[in-house]
Amino acid sequence: MPPSRETPPFESIGIVGLGLIGGSIALATRQKWPGVHLTGLDDRAILDEALARGAIDAGADGLPALATVDLIVLAAPVRQNLERLRQVAQHVQRPILVTDVGGTKRAIVEAAAGLSPAFTFVGGHPLAGAAHAGLAFARADLFANRPWIFTPVAQRSQEAIDRLRRFASGVGAVPILMSPAEHDRLLAYLSHLPQLTASALMAAVGATVKEEGLALAGQGLKDTTRLASSPPSVWRDICATNADALSEALDLLIERLSALRADLRKGDTIEAIFNDAARWREELTKDRQ
Amino acid sequence: MPPSRETPPFESIGIVGLGLIGGSIALATRQKWPGVHLTGLDDRAILDEALARGAIDAGADGLPALATVDLIVLAAPVRQNLERLRQVAQHVQRPILVTDVGGTKRAIVEAAAGLSPAFTFVGGHPLAGAAHAGLAFARADLFANRPWIFTPVAQRSQEAIDRLRRFASGVGAVPILMSPAEHDRLLAYLSHLPQLTASALMAAVGATVKEEGLALAGQGLKDTTRLASSPPSVWRDICATNADALSEALDLLIERLSALRADLRKGDTIEAIFNDAARWREELTKDRQ
Repeated sequence: MPPSRETPPFESIGIVGLGLIGGSIALATRQKWPGVHLTGLDDRAILDEALARGAIDAGADGLPALATVDLIVLAAPVRQNLERLRQVAQHVQRPILVTDVGGTKRAIVEAAAGLSPAFTFVGGHPLAGAAHAGLAFARADLFANRPWIFTPVAQRSQEAIDRLRRFASGVGAVPILMSPAEHDRLLAYLSHLPQLTASALMAAVGATVKEEGLALAGQGLKDTTRLASSPPSVWRDICATNADALSEALDLLIERLSALRADLRKGDTIEAIFNDAARWREELTKDRQ
Repeated sequence: MPPSRETPPFESIGIVGLGLIGGSIALATRQKWPGVHLTGLDDRAILDEALARGAIDAGADGLPALATVDLIVLAAPVRQNLERLRQVAQHVQRPILVTDVGGTKRAIVEAAAGLSPAFTFVGGHPLAGAAHAGLAFARADLFANRPWIFTPVAQRSQEAIDRLRRFASGVGAVPILMSPAEHDRLLAYLSHLPQLTASALMAAVGATVKEEGLALAGQGLKDTTRLASSPPSVWRDICATNADALSEALDLLIERLSALRADLRKGDTIEAIFNDAARWREELTKDRQ
């Protein structure tokens, strides 16, 4: 992704939370539009690390320092984003644009609607991740060819949406629009259910076979439980703010597991279920380039 | 693994089923002890492929051709191994050694005990695998540093066990002894439950979000469901011959998922469950070299 000569959609951006996603947004913006002024807000040690990597131009010690930027990106865990959003409404009286990158969208979109702020809020969620969290693993190409979902709720934000779409495209992502409810239901299946499944499986297997048993495990268990190493603090907020959709998804999985349990000795049924799953997996992994 | 000058534990081996495991046993034996005579038994096309790769010396068109080998390895899906075992009891009247590589051990060990054959049977299970099945993916180093479980049931087979352990060590594996029941319970958690979980999750997610939703999925779902691409024919037999242990494992997982469902809005409980799972995953993936 070479630096672009076109006018950037935002001249200055404030990023609240410089973890894997916030840090990667900084690095990707820097690479695409080197002239954009980037301000980070996070713990001092993380700001120092981001400054040392050249990911940001300045570190802020509070929200007032972000009052003059064109775009604020909330990139902390969901509940912190909700709290920051309230603070932004107090500190920022200009009609700027605010977005977030959290894993659930209904909660923050509803919160924004309730605040009636001076700024325009459009919820966002780049579907990008990595095996490890934190600024140390941030990369300028994290969003390359990945979907970046935006969840606009009113026509009045059309110009804001256009700018955010141009921003997401600029850093390599594929912007997609859907409603907050559609997003939360889809992500309950694509992301939240696999996460809970991996953690529940890992905990059940570990508690049963202990250290000695795990020492014999192969790649299959390791792959299936890879997500169980995800940061718990991110997931407590996602579970809390998508509990209804996630309950439905869990019910469906439990129903499927119970059906398998009932049919373990029925070879044709087992084979049919496995064939069905294998077909969906082929669909999941097929090359869409 | 350079060729060895020490006397091989078996001068001639017959391998029934040249898939990923059977084919890899042939290739690994060939590399370690080039002088051992290897006979394969499988469909004609697979025998031709194995001969072309130099994995075997001869292809057999039936069990009688294996009547003079020192060791027979049953390396087809479990129910086929059970059927082959009965045929071996009919065709082989010499006191040779027979083992298998199937994913469950009680069923075949009990079947062997019921046959009172001329040969000695010791159940075996190399815990090695790959993302793809079949001879094309067989490798001489598939067993390197992987456990190879043997499930002897009587002291009379001590010499047989010693030879099999030497064979497993020779191809790079770490031989381990346990009872058939211990094996089946352990594998229900390490292998069979992750497999069923991956297939159930993939089927549930696919049926809900369809092709359009799957097109947006990331690496998390792909990793968690990787096992759902495993060959269904292998798994119908494993489910059928380990249904009791697998039912218990499924019950435990369903219980964990139900507990998560009930606590989705309780942040501290969710975080505790996730932390527990993350600790077990750290144990699972720690370097044991």
